Amino acid sequence: MTRVARQVKALTFDVFGTVVDWRGSIIAEGRKLGRRERLSVDWQALADAWRAGYRPAMDRVRRGELPWTNIDGLHRRILDELAARFRIEGLTEADKAGFNRAWHRLAPWKDSVAGLKRLKKKYVIATLSNGNVALLTNMAKHAGLPWDCVLSAELFGHYKPDPEAYLGAARLLGLEPGEVMMVAAHKDDLDAAARTGLRTALVRRPMEFGAKQDLPPEARFDLNAKDFVDLARQLGC
Amino acid sequence: MTRVARQVKALTFDVFGTVVDWRGSIIAEGRKLGRRERLSVDWQALADAWRAGYRPAMDRVRRGELPWTNIDGLHRRILDELAARFRIEGLTEADKAGFNRAWHRLAPWKDSVAGLKRLKKKYVIATLSNGNVALLTNMAKHAGLPWDCVLSAELFGHYKPDPEAYLGAARLLGLEPGEVMMVAAHKDDLDAAARTGLRTALVRRPMEFGAKQDLPPEARFDLNAKDFVDLARQLGC
Repeated sequence: MTRVARQVKALTFDVFGTVVDWRGSIIAEGRKLGRRERLSVDWQALADAWRAGYRPAMDRVRRGELPWTNIDGLHRRILDELAARFRIEGLTEADKAGFNRAWHRLAPWKDSVAGLKRLKKKYVIATLSNGNVALLTNMAKHAGLPWDCVLSAELFGHYKPDPEAYLGAARLLGLEPGEVMMVAAHKDDLDAAARTGLRTALVRRPMEFGAKQDLPPEARFDLNAKDFVDLARQLGC
Repeated sequence: MTRVARQVKALTFDVFGTVVDWRGSIIAEGRKLGRRERLSVDWQALADAWRAGYRPAMDRVRRGELPWTNIDGLHRRILDELAARFRIEGLTEADKAGFNRAWHRLAPWKDSVAGLKRLKKKYVIATLSNGNVALLTNMAKHAGLPWDCVLSAELFGHYKPDPEAYLGAARLLGLEPGEVMMVAAHKDDLDAAARTGLRTALVRRPMEFGAKQDLPPEARFDLNAKDFVDLARQLGC
């Protein structure tokens, strides 16, 4: 076991894209809604546009242009903005609220649950997501994700990649930043974590955006893993 | 199933005394330390005095006489104050820090894990404790408590019975106060929860303070249960 694996006591996980397949799940929920409500919508394009709206919306909160708004609130704002463009029409308020909650029911990648169970035997495993606590809690229940605790940007009033999110997670876990390893499929998330002193593990999720897209490993991260089972193996779990 | 059981979506649990036997666990950890370090201490009296210092210490934080200090910090202040009186002498800093962490390793009452597993099938189950997040997370891992999420006064900067703690829990869970049921062995905790609109369940823990002490059921609580398995039965789980 490496020196890093011995120093680290907790792993914090990015969730959307890293643990769960948001794109496949939102498309499937959209198709279900479309069949029920007889809508003719390009659900793949809707899923991509919904997700694409997420970073700019968070950035407006990060710059102080919007007051703190959790991800349920941001997802709903974006959905309402996209509705006309995608001709999602005639839905009741309950339909829209229910579709917005699709983000609480995202499905895990096939290795996620098995890998987390192995990692949990040796490390504290926690979310560290921009998703809100209720979303992450409901998702974990739905998908069987065995978190030791649910940490969220919502607890810090700061979205990742703000340093407050990473440092807040270490503080709540009662650990030094160097005792916490951020696990993500996104290099910007890991780079921001590293700037606050966290350890980093890149997990490749080539299908996150649909068409296969490989993310080469990078020597600047402490670990580079194929999936969560490979991460567990590399950490001696 | 009652109307209350149908309205409620999440159960929030007091932890010290309600889920875990703090007194028996602290006495056992003290005795272990005493044997190792050849200390002659009345560990029952120490456990009681340590716990008795907890409410006044939190109240100093609640009144603003102390800045926000988490329970690990308050436990350590109290332990240091009690050390001379109980002749706990000659310990290294690591010994003292390790004994203070005994609160992270408290053992559950014998029905706690089985009851929580049943309740979890139907409800979101979360801590709502004055214990800090790290303490609750480590305790859950140690004791096998299957929380869906770990909520703590630490997240709100307000100790129970301040209303911010109860309302903050409902807000993070994305629920109305009336959709959350507070479960506790302490009537003052439940009364404070009820004042903020939460539902209430009293669980009797007659052995919490050592000598058997029964807490009669009260009609003002929504439910009165013998233990967590009885609570699960009453909630139709």
